[in-house]
Amino acid sequence: MPTPKRATPRPPAPSRSAARWTDAIPDRDRQFQLRREALLTTAARMFNERGFHNTSLADLAKALHVTKPALYYYVKDKDEILLECQRLGTERLDEAAHAAQAAAGRGIDRLRVFVQRYAEAGTGAFATCVIRSGPHTLHPKARPEILRARRKIERTLEDIIRGGIADGSIAPCDVRMSAFSIFGALHWMCFWYRDDGALPRDEIAERMMALFARGLEPRADVRGRARPHPAGTTAGTSRSR
Amino acid sequence: MPTPKRATPRPPAPSRSAARWTDAIPDRDRQFQLRREALLTTAARMFNERGFHNTSLADLAKALHVTKPALYYYVKDKDEILLECQRLGTERLDEAAHAAQAAAGRGIDRLRVFVQRYAEAGTGAFATCVIRSGPHTLHPKARPEILRARRKIERTLEDIIRGGIADGSIAPCDVRMSAFSIFGALHWMCFWYRDDGALPRDEIAERMMALFARGLEPRADVRGRARPHPAGTTAGTSRSR
Repeated sequence: MPTPKRATPRPPAPSRSAARWTDAIPDRDRQFQLRREALLTTAARMFNERGFHNTSLADLAKALHVTKPALYYYVKDKDEILLECQRLGTERLDEAAHAAQAAAGRGIDRLRVFVQRYAEAGTGAFATCVIRSGPHTLHPKARPEILRARRKIERTLEDIIRGGIADGSIAPCDVRMSAFSIFGALHWMCFWYRDDGALPRDEIAERMMALFARGLEPRADVRGRARPHPAGTTAGTSRSR
Repeated sequence: MPTPKRATPRPPAPSRSAARWTDAIPDRDRQFQLRREALLTTAARMFNERGFHNTSLADLAKALHVTKPALYYYVKDKDEILLECQRLGTERLDEAAHAAQAAAGRGIDRLRVFVQRYAEAGTGAFATCVIRSGPHTLHPKARPEILRARRKIERTLEDIIRGGIADGSIAPCDVRMSAFSIFGALHWMCFWYRDDGALPRDEIAERMMALFARGLEPRADVRGRARPHPAGTTAGTSRSR
């Protein structure tokens, strides 16, 4: 039976502001959630910039303008912060992967959505923390959960590629290797992408996808526009129709 | 003027064993060099497996079957070990990049050599240490040197791609983005490649190169061999001439 959706009438919100998912949570719990999230976001950014081991709880407290003991109201220790950041990061990446899997079109179209959505999610603070801090920075007890979540995301991309091969939109290839190469290019963004860089994320994803989809070798129509051969002969003619 | 090659006659070696570069070094210094290199190799492997911050000098001494004070005969501290490992790693990667740049053929051929040589060098202990430990694990004073070395390697790949566009073997593309995507895929190997894995390095590099060079989209000749469209029509025809 379908569960009630947003369209279902609900009691009017107590104030003029738009209803949010946190409306059902008492004010105190909501404050707690919001503050904890702010703490985790700041922590993820600091881990990404200077490394987990170079960031102390004292640094974090200072950045948040609170005392160090105040942090313990929200989190148990630094290991819990890292686990929570990586948990949120893998959730974002999993959402991106599933949005691509559910997208319309052929396999190659879903792959395009995957690269776009993953590049967007992957350069967020939490997902970057998954990639930059990596699994071995996590407490050994926390690793299996995150590795499981990452493996699930890998399988989603492999399924998309396999679907593309089945529907003829992707040439038969080594699925695992192609997935690893695509993840490599996307994860590498976590090391070089900057919000103030020359290209926006969606443009980067578009160019990356062009490389994966079409490769580097010139096609007949591209060759036609290539520069003249050094010997003086023009390599191509105008594009045939 | 051509420089003398291996074929040039040279004086017989003083002993029956082949002459090596270390022959000129007195025995004591040579021992020192060899032991220091063994120390660095073991350290790099430990950093790669458990992380720099999770590896103590005591762990390293134990793995080498020496006392901790004995380590200080070879290295000043853990920071120096990491710097030296990353220095050797960038040297190996730079050698791979330059071998590709000096290779015969067109740009796309040199790119193929690059991917092959870089995959081989990049999965060695020292190069893996460059990628897995990353720059922010280094002492701040050591970072500029390694970042400069890494930027130099990046420029070599960009030059190879640019050369390929100039000679018509690579389609015009965003050079920097293509280089970053290729580095991403290659560097990601440092996180998943295993010597005892299903595929050897050169085969992985070959499949990776196939993706970069030709892309995922089926070509006319591939489409001709694709499975029939679900509706019953055959998606492709034989290649037109």
